[in-house]
Formats: sequence, structure tokens, C-alpha cells
Amino acid sequence: MIGLIRVITFSDVKLINYHGNLIRNKYNLSIVSECIKNQDKGIHDDVTERKAVPKIIDLGKRMADSGCDLIIVSCAADPAVKQLRSRIDIPVIGAGSSASLVALANGKRTGVIGITEEVPAIIKETLGVHFQGYLRPDGIDNTNDLLSKSGQEACVQAVKQLISGGAEQILFACTGMGTINLKDILNANHIEVPLIDAVDAEGLFASFYSKRN
Amino acid sequence: MIGLIRVITFSDVKLINYHGNLIRNKYNLSIVSECIKNQDKGIHDDVTERKAVPKIIDLGKRMADSGCDLIIVSCAADPAVKQLRSRIDIPVIGAGSSASLVALANGKRTGVIGITEEVPAIIKETLGVHFQGYLRPDGIDNTNDLLSKSGQEACVQAVKQLISGGAEQILFACTGMGTINLKDILNANHIEVPLIDAVDAEGLFASFYSKRN
Repeated sequence: MIGLIRVITFSDVKLINYHGNLIRNKYNLSIVSECIKNQDKGIHDDVTERKAVPKIIDLGKRMADSGCDLIIVSCAADPAVKQLRSRIDIPVIGAGSSASLVALANGKRTGVIGITEEVPAIIKETLGVHFQGYLRPDGIDNTNDLLSKSGQEACVQAVKQLISGGAEQILFACTGMGTINLKDILNANHIEVPLIDAVDAEGLFASFYSKRN
Repeated sequence: MIGLIRVITFSDVKLINYHGNLIRNKYNLSIVSECIKNQDKGIHDDVTERKAVPKIIDLGKRMADSGCDLIIVSCAADPAVKQLRSRIDIPVIGAGSSASLVALANGKRTGVIGITEEVPAIIKETLGVHFQGYLRPDGIDNTNDLLSKSGQEACVQAVKQLISGGAEQILFACTGMGTINLKDILNANHIEVPLIDAVDAEGLFASFYSKRN
């Protein structure tokens, strides 16, 4: 069983399980999902990340103690991933490092879109010379802004701008972009470069390291 | 359709398609495999790698021209991968970079076994601080040596030695180790750390980037 940590607080069971269900449906894995508490807007800046880290460590340790054989931290900033790796023996997979490593496997110059003011450090560091540029789409301040039609149109514009600037593929530096299925939205807008969805990427590596594999 | 390049010369169709069939069976992808010419012992040192590079470039370009939408260079040294990426637009996946990037997704210290005197450069560079050490099992000089019982026992011993030295997972730096299903051999010998098979790793990324995805 895989433990998937949501870094945003939901009470709706369907929302809690949304990333887990995307991964389960694509990779045929057994997943239990849990949210950290009291973060209704998730992680979208340094303050909200610092607030989340101890909660993620506690939840990850509890999931490992309860028998999970792999932990996914489903957030593009990889919050608490390093700390968890030093505390538990099972594989710990982060959305941001996963998306960046998938991008490197293709070797193309990678444009990044996200919801934070700056590109998440784990993504910029991992991409290295393959990092092309970063944009936060207009009007997007947190993951909930992605749900509006105007937010989604701003994502399409940002991606077009990155490609004009030389990006050969696009990485989604917010797992909320998986929630809205931004890949399909971009395809419908004739974006044809490879698209790296961080939820898909974390699922890919979880499928490789899961004991079921 | 994915084009898979074997860097060893076979005439037996079953051997030519062996890696492609492993990937097809696990990831449900359509794959056509071809060998480079006149390298009966494959790539196992600098001389054989230099000899292979122009042949791989020619074959990869021909496969792209004939309609393949992704190329796999099925060799742990990633020969000609960078050159091919600069010459064709479709994704080019290398076995060595794939295995190393999969290892980084788990973040554990990685011991490497292979058939060359030194660890392939692409693997050591990509693993960075996560590289734990490298061993060539006793009596193994080229991929054909892996087929013998004594060669396989030497692989088990080398893996045990790397784990004693602090490796938390093991990466196979020769695709011939996928051919002999070294993962099953190690599991049967009670090796329980994560095992990263380079053929499996290249298939993983091909499944992500394939147009079918």
C-alpha cells in the first residue's frame, strides 16, 4: 500500500483522493491518501511551506508505521521529502523532483509553470542547464485559482509564452494542474510539445518502486 | 511506434527483440528493434563505444525518418544519446541516464554494477552525491559473460559487497543484466534493497513520453 500525502486540507473525500485516484487509474496501484491539517490554501509560498513541513513529517512517519511501503509527497516543492528520507527506510517520492527527473530523461529544454512567485528550488536545481524559464500565469496565486476558466486560459497563455522563448517541453510545477487536467486543456489548444504533469510523474516512479512491481 | 537500438550485433530475431519484448510486455508499447552492425561483443570499453557512436546516430536518424516517435538507445553508457538529441526532434531515451534518474527519484545511496572497468560516466555524473560505489563482478568482461552460471554468481557477490559498503539500492549498469533477469536472481538470493534494471528504466520513461501515453 502506498501512502499519498496531500499538502492542502480538504474535507471532501473525493478531493482528498483525487491525486491518488489519478495514479491508481493509470498505474494500477493501491493508494491511501491523507491531508495535512489546517492549510486550506495548501503550500503557495515560503511561509505556508514552513508551516507544512512538520505536519508532513508526522503524517509520513505515521503512514510508514501503519504499513505503507512507499510514501508520495504530492506537492511540487518536495516539502519534507529530504527529512522523511532520513527518518524512514521506505522510498519517499516527491512531485517536484519526480517531474524534473522525468524532464531530464528526455533531455529537452524545459519551461516551467507554477503558482508560486519563484520556481520551486527543487525543480530549478534538478533541471540544471535544462531549465529554460518559469512563469506564474496571470491571476494565479494558489491552487484554487486554477479552477476558474480565466485561470486556465492564463495557463495556456503562459505555456505559449514559454514555448516562444525556447522551451521544448513544459513542466507543471503545481499538482493542482493535474487536478484540473491541464494536459488535456493544453492539447485542446494545440500545444504539441511534451507536457510533464507532476502527479503523473510521481505516479510513474511510485509504480517503479512499489513492492507490487 | 518506438525505435529501440541494440548496440550489439545479433542475427537471432529473438535476441534482437529481447529488450523490446521486455518493455512491450511490461508497458504495453509498440516497439521495433534493430542492431548496429559488426559489434558482436557490443560496447564494453572506450574503443567499442567510439566505434558504435556513428552507427547509432545513423540508425536513430533512419528510425526517426521512417516514422518512429521515440528512440531508445538500449545501452547503459548512453552512447550517441546527446548527438541524436541534437539531430532529431523526437524524444531520445538512454538506458544509463534512465536508470540513474530513476535512482534519484528514490534518493537513496546507489551502488552500481556493470561490465566495464570504470562506471559509465553518464551514470556517475547523474547520480552525483547519491553514487555509492561501482563494481565489475569477477570474470565479467562483456555482456556475453553474464550468461554463465559463474558470471551470475559473481553478480550476486558484487551486489552483497556494495550493500556491505553502504549501498541502499543497486543499479545495473549493463542492459545485459536485464537480459539475464538479474533482478529475479538477486531476489532469489535474498537481496531486498531496491534494484534498478536499466532496460526497465528506459521502458518506464518511454512509456511516459510515447505518443500512446
